[in-house]
Amino acid sequence: MCQGFKAAGIASGLKKNGMLDLGLIVSDTPAAVAGVFTRNRVQAAPVLLCKKRIQSGTSRAVIANSGNANCCTGDQGMADAVRMARLAAGALGIAEDQVLPASTGVIGQPLAVGKIEAALPALAAALSPDGLDDFARAIMTTDTRPKMISRQGHVNGKTFTVTAVAKGAGMICPNMATMLCFVMTDIAAEPGTLQPMLAASVDKSFNRITIDGDTSTNDTVLILANGMSGIFLEAGEGISVFQEVLDAVLIELAKMVVKDGEGATKLVEIVVKAAASEEDAKKIVFTVANSNLVKTALFGQDANWGRIFAAAGRSGAVFNPEAVDIWFDDVRIVKDGLWAGSEAEQKATRILQKPEFRIIIDLKNGDGQYSGWTCDFSIDYVKINADYRS
Amino acid sequence: MCQGFKAAGIASGLKKNGMLDLGLIVSDTPAAVAGVFTRNRVQAAPVLLCKKRIQSGTSRAVIANSGNANCCTGDQGMADAVRMARLAAGALGIAEDQVLPASTGVIGQPLAVGKIEAALPALAAALSPDGLDDFARAIMTTDTRPKMISRQGHVNGKTFTVTAVAKGAGMICPNMATMLCFVMTDIAAEPGTLQPMLAASVDKSFNRITIDGDTSTNDTVLILANGMSGIFLEAGEGISVFQEVLDAVLIELAKMVVKDGEGATKLVEIVVKAAASEEDAKKIVFTVANSNLVKTALFGQDANWGRIFAAAGRSGAVFNPEAVDIWFDDVRIVKDGLWAGSEAEQKATRILQKPEFRIIIDLKNGDGQYSGWTCDFSIDYVKINADYRS
Repeated sequence: MCQGFKAAGIASGLKKNGMLDLGLIVSDTPAAVAGVFTRNRVQAAPVLLCKKRIQSGTSRAVIANSGNANCCTGDQGMADAVRMARLAAGALGIAEDQVLPASTGVIGQPLAVGKIEAALPALAAALSPDGLDDFARAIMTTDTRPKMISRQGHVNGKTFTVTAVAKGAGMICPNMATMLCFVMTDIAAEPGTLQPMLAASVDKSFNRITIDGDTSTNDTVLILANGMSGIFLEAGEGISVFQEVLDAVLIELAKMVVKDGEGATKLVEIVVKAAASEEDAKKIVFTVANSNLVKTALFGQDANWGRIFAAAGRSGAVFNPEAVDIWFDDVRIVKDGLWAGSEAEQKATRILQKPEFRIIIDLKNGDGQYSGWTCDFSIDYVKINADYRS
Repeated sequence: MCQGFKAAGIASGLKKNGMLDLGLIVSDTPAAVAGVFTRNRVQAAPVLLCKKRIQSGTSRAVIANSGNANCCTGDQGMADAVRMARLAAGALGIAEDQVLPASTGVIGQPLAVGKIEAALPALAAALSPDGLDDFARAIMTTDTRPKMISRQGHVNGKTFTVTAVAKGAGMICPNMATMLCFVMTDIAAEPGTLQPMLAASVDKSFNRITIDGDTSTNDTVLILANGMSGIFLEAGEGISVFQEVLDAVLIELAKMVVKDGEGATKLVEIVVKAAASEEDAKKIVFTVANSNLVKTALFGQDANWGRIFAAAGRSGAVFNPEAVDIWFDDVRIVKDGLWAGSEAEQKATRILQKPEFRIIIDLKNGDGQYSGWTCDFSIDYVKINADYRS
């Protein structure tokens, strides 16, 4: 855990099964803050409140619950988000507007803030530098495991730390920060410096993953920077080192999210090379990454390149089908638009049996390049989502 | 079956399981022809050949196979499509360019035209006015039942018939004529009159359905009009009556395709009302209709309106979430953006148990309206598509 931060998680009763469902992160000092939020037209009350509160440039705490998204809950939902943050502020003895609320879970049900109120004293008492694992578990919904990572970087002989925690296993599709993610660092920075750096990292990580093509109403990525490392983020080496560490942390977390995708058994990177433009490459990456036919074939460990090709064809990108090569890792299954034969097919089938691999689509058409991560689409995905609310 | 047409279907061995896989439709006289084809960038050889051949304005026959899409097969694929049509022309004693080929099945494998050659004499000998059921079965892939329909109309005391046959159960998403469909009629028409009427009908039918969001490389809708009814299609009453019958036939067939969607247990119409524009309404219809989270909830018979709301929110359409009503048939589950309560929830849950119902999203925002059909997303969809090639 990054110095100067504490965390905790507790079971408040919001989840019916008695699992951890309420988490708190606190910075010992006011931290510079920046955030990236869902682009969904429908946005949860805590998202709307966070967006407003980070305008001040500093924050002290994050209170997050699972089991209820507090979305499509109208004026009552906004009042509940405000109250949830106020309760946390009271327990911590800090100003109300220094607390950022976040919620994840079922949409459209009123939030039982009474349960949060009852649990807050014990939650605040449990705050600890070792509490992040509990916090990570408290924000899980259909996630099967907590997702945390910590990395260090060095500037002018001084060391800084970036620690981040995320949740997300369904309703995951790139359209800005597709889940909850909280980043803590002891770098010192102006909020105005942090914001574009966070946005750039999100574009390389959470905006490149998809599990099911559905964008959540609650997606939130927040970064809190408390300055305790003594490194001040300004033009020069520091910026590039910090961006690099932040990128690495968020990319690793994003991959953890896809790997833990609902029902997922495989993590697959889709790479499109030599497209007419980056925009075209991106269209193909996400059309392939979201194709149910491709994803079920991945689950079936079937090197069904025809479905990949057909998905690329309907992506809207312009390319010459007769120039296309398709690779599974180092095996070229399609050469110049045609099947490369049964030997390549056999080799490709072995790659499909691996838990992680890459699909590379080479259009031989220009300089455009893009890549992203997806998972396979299994029987368990349907089971999980046919039953989720009940 | 419409007068002046014969059809047949036979097992040629292209399907490994010995099922019917090769079909022939023949018009006794040269028929006016029009066609609508996939907009996928990757197009199968028979699609490319059909597009060229219908330029002449008349055709006599369609030869169609299942078990192999003859797509991504390069120069050999085009040579095979030409040869397949030539063999049919030879067996029928008609000009080669009067035959339209179509293929559906696995992408990227060479077509075993030798099997088609060996089967053609028996296929031609089997041609009969009663052969359409066999033809319909011969073009099935993962379809569980043949899809045919016949309707009549009347103009100036004379009667015309429209008979159509279709296949499609997967790789179904609206982007022009999303499957194979062959329409036969005894109306007399200029090809230039038929083409826009066919396109208009397709926009009201096949372009409004989705099973899995994947657009095929082989989608083809052809109409052959042999004129035997003695009704000539020209401005006036005839045009509107014929368009009406053609619309009804294609809408009914399109709904049959969705109902037989891979693993589907429900046929659901998505209606968006009072959007800012028809374009916005359409965006929401297809985002909801293709959402895996919505479709798995439909399978689970869960009135999970939060997923519908969230899908609408990410569709790109502009609307005020606080004005939205959502209905399941005649039950309003969301009123002004908020949950309508547990009584509505109970009623909605009973509607979700029906095999067919409507989801109506009322944005109270303008005059834009659009609707489309989708199916639920079941465990069987994953099973079918994880195993399809093997």
